[in-house]
Amino acid sequence: MILQDTIVALATPSGAGAIAVIRVSGEDAITLAADIFQSVSGKDLNRQKTHTLHLGHLVDGDKVYDQVLVSVFKGPNSYTGENTVEISCHGSTFIQQQIIQLVLRKGAKMAQPGEFTLRAFLNGKLDLSQAEAVADLIASDNEASHQIAMQQMRGGFSNEIAKLREELLNFASLIELELDFSEEDVEFADRTQFNELIQRIDLVLKRLIDSFAVGNVIKNGIPVAIVGEPNVGKSTLLNALLNEERAIVSDIAGTTRDTIEDELVIDGIGFRFIDTAGIRETVDVVESIGIKKTFEKMEQAQVVVYLVDNSKLTDIGIAEIKNELRRIEEQYPLKPLLVIGNKSDMIQADTRATLEYEIPNILLISAKQKIGIDELKERLLSFVNTGALRNNETIVTNSRHYDALLKALEEIQKVKWGLETNLPADLMAIDIRQALYYFGEITGQVTNDELLGNIFANFCIGK
Amino acid sequence: MILQDTIVALATPSGAGAIAVIRVSGEDAITLAADIFQSVSGKDLNRQKTHTLHLGHLVDGDKVYDQVLVSVFKGPNSYTGENTVEISCHGSTFIQQQIIQLVLRKGAKMAQPGEFTLRAFLNGKLDLSQAEAVADLIASDNEASHQIAMQQMRGGFSNEIAKLREELLNFASLIELELDFSEEDVEFADRTQFNELIQRIDLVLKRLIDSFAVGNVIKNGIPVAIVGEPNVGKSTLLNALLNEERAIVSDIAGTTRDTIEDELVIDGIGFRFIDTAGIRETVDVVESIGIKKTFEKMEQAQVVVYLVDNSKLTDIGIAEIKNELRRIEEQYPLKPLLVIGNKSDMIQADTRATLEYEIPNILLISAKQKIGIDELKERLLSFVNTGALRNNETIVTNSRHYDALLKALEEIQKVKWGLETNLPADLMAIDIRQALYYFGEITGQVTNDELLGNIFANFCIGK
Repeated sequence: MILQDTIVALATPSGAGAIAVIRVSGEDAITLAADIFQSVSGKDLNRQKTHTLHLGHLVDGDKVYDQVLVSVFKGPNSYTGENTVEISCHGSTFIQQQIIQLVLRKGAKMAQPGEFTLRAFLNGKLDLSQAEAVADLIASDNEASHQIAMQQMRGGFSNEIAKLREELLNFASLIELELDFSEEDVEFADRTQFNELIQRIDLVLKRLIDSFAVGNVIKNGIPVAIVGEPNVGKSTLLNALLNEERAIVSDIAGTTRDTIEDELVIDGIGFRFIDTAGIRETVDVVESIGIKKTFEKMEQAQVVVYLVDNSKLTDIGIAEIKNELRRIEEQYPLKPLLVIGNKSDMIQADTRATLEYEIPNILLISAKQKIGIDELKERLLSFVNTGALRNNETIVTNSRHYDALLKALEEIQKVKWGLETNLPADLMAIDIRQALYYFGEITGQVTNDELLGNIFANFCIGK
Repeated sequence: MILQDTIVALATPSGAGAIAVIRVSGEDAITLAADIFQSVSGKDLNRQKTHTLHLGHLVDGDKVYDQVLVSVFKGPNSYTGENTVEISCHGSTFIQQQIIQLVLRKGAKMAQPGEFTLRAFLNGKLDLSQAEAVADLIASDNEASHQIAMQQMRGGFSNEIAKLREELLNFASLIELELDFSEEDVEFADRTQFNELIQRIDLVLKRLIDSFAVGNVIKNGIPVAIVGEPNVGKSTLLNALLNEERAIVSDIAGTTRDTIEDELVIDGIGFRFIDTAGIRETVDVVESIGIKKTFEKMEQAQVVVYLVDNSKLTDIGIAEIKNELRRIEEQYPLKPLLVIGNKSDMIQADTRATLEYEIPNILLISAKQKIGIDELKERLLSFVNTGALRNNETIVTNSRHYDALLKALEEIQKVKWGLETNLPADLMAIDIRQALYYFGEITGQVTNDELLGNIFANFCIGK
């Protein structure tokens, strides 16, 4: 990792807009910018205070590139911890390119994805989990994932880990001290207190590991398979769920949102709907391939929604449905299954009574008339344990952290067993060191180039 | 136009990126931002100097929206001339929306397209032609249009007009003074000097009006019709022209460029290629409809390129081509016509000699072997009078300015005629006032809501 050079990249989204921001960071960033900047009031950029803004023109020889506003940040008081300049220019892609090329010609090099944040990490401005939260924050597209990324970026998660690590480190050094006096058979580390700490760490790790189930759901959305024949009203149902949510964003003029037809956010939690064909019993080869696919999709889903068109129900129909539901439950006994009867506005009271008797958990709705949609949302949300989210507890969303926590737990269990069996201090010290290693991997106190490469390659350029 | 309220908009391109900038302007902009901003060092935003940057969190009650960098600009030292705050936040579209909604809830209103620049104009930070140059600058996608927009934004054009207007205004007031003393038959305005000024204005106006021909071309590109049968190598030719130019932009990682297949920039000038079918004589009804369309496309083009496949030429073929060229020249005697013989690497020396004898101006190239491409570029460029561009003269690119200049010239001609025929001062004063009006329309000294509405409606939101 070479940090001496000065890097440049477009920091704002690509494309044309009112303004664009080009970020330059490195020891020479300010000198470089001063060389191509002509302040309207004749100021020298090299002599300006940190956190100040300056209006002027970017020039090279006779050529005027743009009227710009330059922000000056002096290391270590910048995002990267280095000298940094942000050039706010007119947002034509042509101008953006011209200015980046100009800065490159003046000796900067193009920044790698995430290199600004990598430098922030290497310069101690962020720990590794905070740096990862920056990428999560930029990728966040709903309330819940945003909230968790914010919390992680502000250090909530790292603090919890760092505190445990420090306490463990304390005991570790006491135990290692015992090794130096091993012939005297002394115990510097109070075994009762140590045991208490290990119990506490064990609990915290288990809680964090458990939180990954909900964290992962929040980050990636919950896959929901909708099983139902064509025309039972799948798309009407999705639209009914979607429309209300859409209204929230669409009243801001000028904000665009890429809508994936079958993805929607309910109360800040993302749900990804997977459309399937039904699973009607058949001898037709083509259809049975379709059924196999439906089962594959159910396999991937965390929740299965089984949709019925009430208006076409007969007694035979109800028997068939019960049969299909039984098949699903046999295949996936642990997967939440939600049975929805659509077009309920079109059935008589007696059919309704029969349905509710035969399929006790059925939720009767009308997607078209928007009846029962709120209850449907509540049922969907009930599959997500959002308690931790509401209580502002630390939630693990990153699978790298999850892996490290699992490994740390394994080592802690060994220490626990060691304590129980009075394992010699030198053997216990090995397990403790290993646990410390995994803690350090999360916050970045323990790291290597390959790990950093993997993490920051997923960043966008300019961050 | 109500300027009391505070406006907000996303200033950077829509979509996700490392950072996004949200601009807030108006008397209450800083107070509003201070209300939702928690500085990391406990600073009160209301008490900060202009042109300073502050790190902190955007919060509302318990909810933390984002870690942001806030720029403070105090009116009149801002782009709009009003108090302005720029919030640099993490670039997720979700966060952008959340922050804009937060600012709206705190009492701001959504900015109209161009409203920031409109306010800058109304607050006297820019004149109207400079404001228009801002939009041109953002839209500029090549060297020449960028250069002209920069010059116009820096006031080159306005200064020229404003200076003439002032001199004319001087004489106008002297002549109006004569009216007050009309019974005494005095001449305050020296007619010889006045005549000199009118001659000078006349010359400048004519030069500016003439410059619109090249200005328009630079702004909108030159439409070039390529006439040729299928398979003569039209797309190979375009690719040969295009590839070299493309290389310039593609070596910057992370910059994207929307390429319109048939548009390319040569030496900073845009050319728009219009593909046509040939114009081979035919009795076939369908084909003759095609020929009619080809002629319509030639009509729209400023340059016609006639492309021949040399490798398939026979004596009859050459006679046919000469016939077709004659038809084009008859139809469009004034339109530049460039005849290109493609696949010249595949012909013998004697065919080459025959061709050059029969069609004297033919340019022999090989698009595939990249032979003759540079000369082709030079020939295309020769159709554009880029002298004014090279000499850094003021070039008019805006059709609104062009119209106003034409009208001003008309009035100036009347004044000129008035001077020659010793028209009474009261009649001449009317023409002078009218000319002054049109000058004022360009710089915005004379304006109305409808005109402003038209101009700023074409801006993007956030500028």
